[in-house]
Amino acid sequence: MRWATLRTPDGTRAARREGDVYVLLDAPDVGALLRRPDPARAAEVGQVPVGEADWAPLVTGPARVVCVGLNYRSHIEEMGREAPEHPTLFTKFASTLTGARDDLAIPSDSDQVDWEAELAVVVGRPLRRADPGEALAAIAGYTVANDVSMRDWQWRTSQWLPGKAFDASTPLGPELVTPDEVDHARDLEVTCEVDGVVRQRGRTSDLVFDAAAALAYVSRFTAWEPGDVLLTGTPGGVGAASGLRLVPGSVLTTRVDGLGTCVNRCVADS
Amino acid sequence: MRWATLRTPDGTRAARREGDVYVLLDAPDVGALLRRPDPARAAEVGQVPVGEADWAPLVTGPARVVCVGLNYRSHIEEMGREAPEHPTLFTKFASTLTGARDDLAIPSDSDQVDWEAELAVVVGRPLRRADPGEALAAIAGYTVANDVSMRDWQWRTSQWLPGKAFDASTPLGPELVTPDEVDHARDLEVTCEVDGVVRQRGRTSDLVFDAAAALAYVSRFTAWEPGDVLLTGTPGGVGAASGLRLVPGSVLTTRVDGLGTCVNRCVADS
Repeated sequence: MRWATLRTPDGTRAARREGDVYVLLDAPDVGALLRRPDPARAAEVGQVPVGEADWAPLVTGPARVVCVGLNYRSHIEEMGREAPEHPTLFTKFASTLTGARDDLAIPSDSDQVDWEAELAVVVGRPLRRADPGEALAAIAGYTVANDVSMRDWQWRTSQWLPGKAFDASTPLGPELVTPDEVDHARDLEVTCEVDGVVRQRGRTSDLVFDAAAALAYVSRFTAWEPGDVLLTGTPGGVGAASGLRLVPGSVLTTRVDGLGTCVNRCVADS
Repeated sequence: MRWATLRTPDGTRAARREGDVYVLLDAPDVGALLRRPDPARAAEVGQVPVGEADWAPLVTGPARVVCVGLNYRSHIEEMGREAPEHPTLFTKFASTLTGARDDLAIPSDSDQVDWEAELAVVVGRPLRRADPGEALAAIAGYTVANDVSMRDWQWRTSQWLPGKAFDASTPLGPELVTPDEVDHARDLEVTCEVDGVVRQRGRTSDLVFDAAAALAYVSRFTAWEPGDVLLTGTPGGVGAASGLRLVPGSVLTTRVDGLGTCVNRCVADS
């Protein structure tokens, strides 16, 4: 199954994909749908052709957006670091997320806006002090994210938050793909193109901590709730390693094998 | 005016203090109250004597809990660091907060549980790209917090999140005191006692970035919403500097001059 959250004249709506059509559902987003006892039985309230979809962030009000940094062996090497014993974790706000086709504002007070293509997962069930097997079973589905990072803001102090949490800077979507439709989630290709040039290409088999391991670790200090989001980290090839950056006019294309593609055009901040 | 959020048989309720009584209001918490056009006109739904109050976290569902680290000159010195040019920022989840008299669970897998007494502020109005004057005017009120920190979890990687975000580990309350009732918010005494021994004593005049400056800085990357919380940092005297720690049985008393006191008993995690 594939789920999405679409903007409609009546506000955002969760939707279920059926071929070339989204069936709109009586829930404001995929997160709200997942908090229901039986998401598959939500009432249908309309249809939108996929070609006319306006994707909102896949979840609009998660209680937690947790990200793993330095999690691909290739990215750890390019940043000159050692493989970690524990996952490096930071957060974003719900307001940091944006839609899979939305424009990305390049802040006027950052000149180091960088890309980080990532596999993301959305949690489907409450999860506390779980082991990786329980965490794997609680994954509602997989999607695509780009942890766009303002490096100058990220590295002003020891804590990365400001560079990772600009409002509407992290594309998430377009669809949540349920685990039964994802072959080989442990070995998906993750790519990032800037203006049509491939800058990152990695495989999730290169992850130090896979989604289940990271979810389990986090669940030791905070209980996951349905609709929460984990970003699993980014492979080698970020702009910081090569001196490149996003500027107004750049087109950022983020793809995960079999899941979908985010295409976000960079614009000057207004 | 003084506001609180109390647990009642009907769930949590915002309340307004009138002498020795809390007047319960038709809003689930102080955050929900602040999101209304006129918080002072909420309907009254009951009363509870202050002596019988069961304080919930002062706000129960903030979209943002942002904390400033290394912000008192005295604490910066004891941690062996230099005064920063920009505030060091990290986050907690809404679920990290706990009530002003609640027990604190000492996690079985941490043996470095530490205290950090802090002045906190709650935001009363949306705030985006504000200057410090605008930020000061948007403060709904002041309260007391303890940024209880699991140092072993905090320092496992470069990013502090895990040690700062254990569920129900950060007392916040008991009351929100509106700015008109706070004399000299820029020079309040902040103290922390453990088992009746004063371990921290600082004054907010020692802050490198005061509440308004920190709110303004954060508002450059994310827009504050009513009910959001800022913790302003902790003065010198944390356990990490002296080798002390909280254990089951410890009583943690956190006080800010004129605002109130949190008293939290540490218990073994169940």
